[in-house]
Amino acid sequence: MLDPVTRDRALQAAEAAVEVAGSVIRPFFRSGIATHTKDDRSPVTIADRTAERVMRAVLTERMPEAGILGEEFGLEQPEARLRWVLDPLDGTRAFITGRPTFGILLALLVDDEPVLGLIDQPVLRERWTGVAGRPTRFTGPFGGGTAGIATTRRGMALSEAELSCTAPGMMDDRTRPGFQRLEAAVRRSSWGGDCYGYGLLALGQIDVVAERDMKPWDWAALVPVVEGAGGRITDWSGRPLRADGDGSVLAVGDPALLAPCVACLSAAA
Amino acid sequence: MLDPVTRDRALQAAEAAVEVAGSVIRPFFRSGIATHTKDDRSPVTIADRTAERVMRAVLTERMPEAGILGEEFGLEQPEARLRWVLDPLDGTRAFITGRPTFGILLALLVDDEPVLGLIDQPVLRERWTGVAGRPTRFTGPFGGGTAGIATTRRGMALSEAELSCTAPGMMDDRTRPGFQRLEAAVRRSSWGGDCYGYGLLALGQIDVVAERDMKPWDWAALVPVVEGAGGRITDWSGRPLRADGDGSVLAVGDPALLAPCVACLSAAA
Repeated sequence: MLDPVTRDRALQAAEAAVEVAGSVIRPFFRSGIATHTKDDRSPVTIADRTAERVMRAVLTERMPEAGILGEEFGLEQPEARLRWVLDPLDGTRAFITGRPTFGILLALLVDDEPVLGLIDQPVLRERWTGVAGRPTRFTGPFGGGTAGIATTRRGMALSEAELSCTAPGMMDDRTRPGFQRLEAAVRRSSWGGDCYGYGLLALGQIDVVAERDMKPWDWAALVPVVEGAGGRITDWSGRPLRADGDGSVLAVGDPALLAPCVACLSAAA
Repeated sequence: MLDPVTRDRALQAAEAAVEVAGSVIRPFFRSGIATHTKDDRSPVTIADRTAERVMRAVLTERMPEAGILGEEFGLEQPEARLRWVLDPLDGTRAFITGRPTFGILLALLVDDEPVLGLIDQPVLRERWTGVAGRPTRFTGPFGGGTAGIATTRRGMALSEAELSCTAPGMMDDRTRPGFQRLEAAVRRSSWGGDCYGYGLLALGQIDVVAERDMKPWDWAALVPVVEGAGGRITDWSGRPLRADGDGSVLAVGDPALLAPCVACLSAAA
C-alpha cells in the first residue's frame, strides 16, 4: 500500500495527467473523415500518441520515482516499485465512430498491485476515481442519485443481472461457449462500452462485464474503481488479474455473482 | 409532400413534443436499482409510457388533423393523411444500463412517406432534424466540425467502411450469414447504439448500419435524417422501408455503398 502523503501526491498527479490527456483528445473527437487516413499519421494515432506523451510528461515531472508502462511507448524504469500503467485512448473503435464512451485509463501499481485507478471520459467530463481501501468517487453531469460516490448494485440473482461486453469478436471458438452460457443465465446483455462499461458497473447500472483480449493497460485502472464501488474484478476463473494472465476479465457488481459467473464461463462446465 | 406552412407548423410541433418527452425521461436516467423492478410499474415503463402520453398530448393539441402511431398506445385517427409515428424511448437496454445513447424518435408521414424525422438524445442534448428535401440539421455540444449540418461520409470503398449494429442477437440463423459477409467486407464493426448509430452515420462517423427486428416507430424518423444528410436507408434488399416489410434496415452514408452492402446481405449470395 501507499503512505497517505504519497497516495495524495499520486492522486493529484493522476488527475493532472488525465486532465491534460483529455485536452489533447477532445479536439479530435468527431473531427471528420481524416480519422480514416490509412497511414500511421491518422488523427486517432496522433491523439493517442500525443496523449500518452503528455501523460508521461506530467507523471514523470510529479513522481520521478515511479516507472511508467503504456501501450505506445513501452516501459520506463522497470525496476521501480511504483508503476503507472496507462491507456490514453481505451475504446478506439468508439472514439473513431463518434461515441462518447471511450476513456482515458490510468492506474498506479505498487509491487504489481493496482492501488489507484482513474477512468476518464473527456467529452462528457465524467470521471471515476478508485483508491484502494476507499469508496470510488464519480464526478460528471449525469450522476443520477450517486452524489459523488459510485456504488454497485447488489442483491439480485444472476437471472436478473444486466451483462455487458464490448464486442462478440472478443470471443473465439474456445471461449464463446462459456460466454454464451453466461448470456443465457442473465436477464439481458448489451454491447459496446469498453472501459465505460466498467464505469457503469461501478454506478450500479450494469451487473456483469465479461471480456477477453485485455492487456494490463486495459484493466489495471478498473481494479480500484470496481472494488472501491463494492464489486469484484478477476479473470474468468475467478483469480486475481495478472500481467501474465490469459487476458480474460470478469467484473461483477455484487460479489455474490462471482461464483455463478465463473461457473458459466469455466470451459469445463 | 407538405406545403411550407404545414411543414413549419409540424416542425414546431415535433420539436415541442420531443422537448417535453426529454424532460419526462431525464430524471429516470441512472436513477438506480428501481429500474429493475419486475412488475410493469418499473421506472423504465413509467418513463416510456409517460413520454408517449405527453408527446401525444402536444401533437394532438398542435396538429389535431394528424393521426398518431406509437408503440404503447396504438394508432389514433387511422384514416388521417398525416400521421405521426413515435418511439419515446428507443434503445431501452441502453437507457436501463445508463448509456446516453438511447433516443426519442418522432416522424411525420404523409401518405405513408416519412417527410420529417427527429432523433433526440435528451441527456446529451443532441438532436438530429431531418426534413424531406432539406439538409439534416444537428444540434448538440459535441458537433465536431459539423457547424449545425449533418453530412455523411463519402468516397470510401466498402473495405474502408465502419459498420455498426446494436446487437448480434438481432440476427438469426437465416440472416446471420449475410451479416457476417458484410462484416467480413468492411474495415471494422462496432456494437451498440440503437437510433444513435444512425445519428452517427448522419454525422459521417459510421458508414453502414445493418439491423433487423425494426418496427415502423424504430425506423420512420431515421429516413429523413439519413437521407437529408446524404445517405440512403432501405431494407436489406435495397427496397424502400415499408410498414409491412420484413423489419430489416440498411443505412449507408455513401449511396455508392448500397449495392455492395445489399450484395453481401442478400440471402442468395
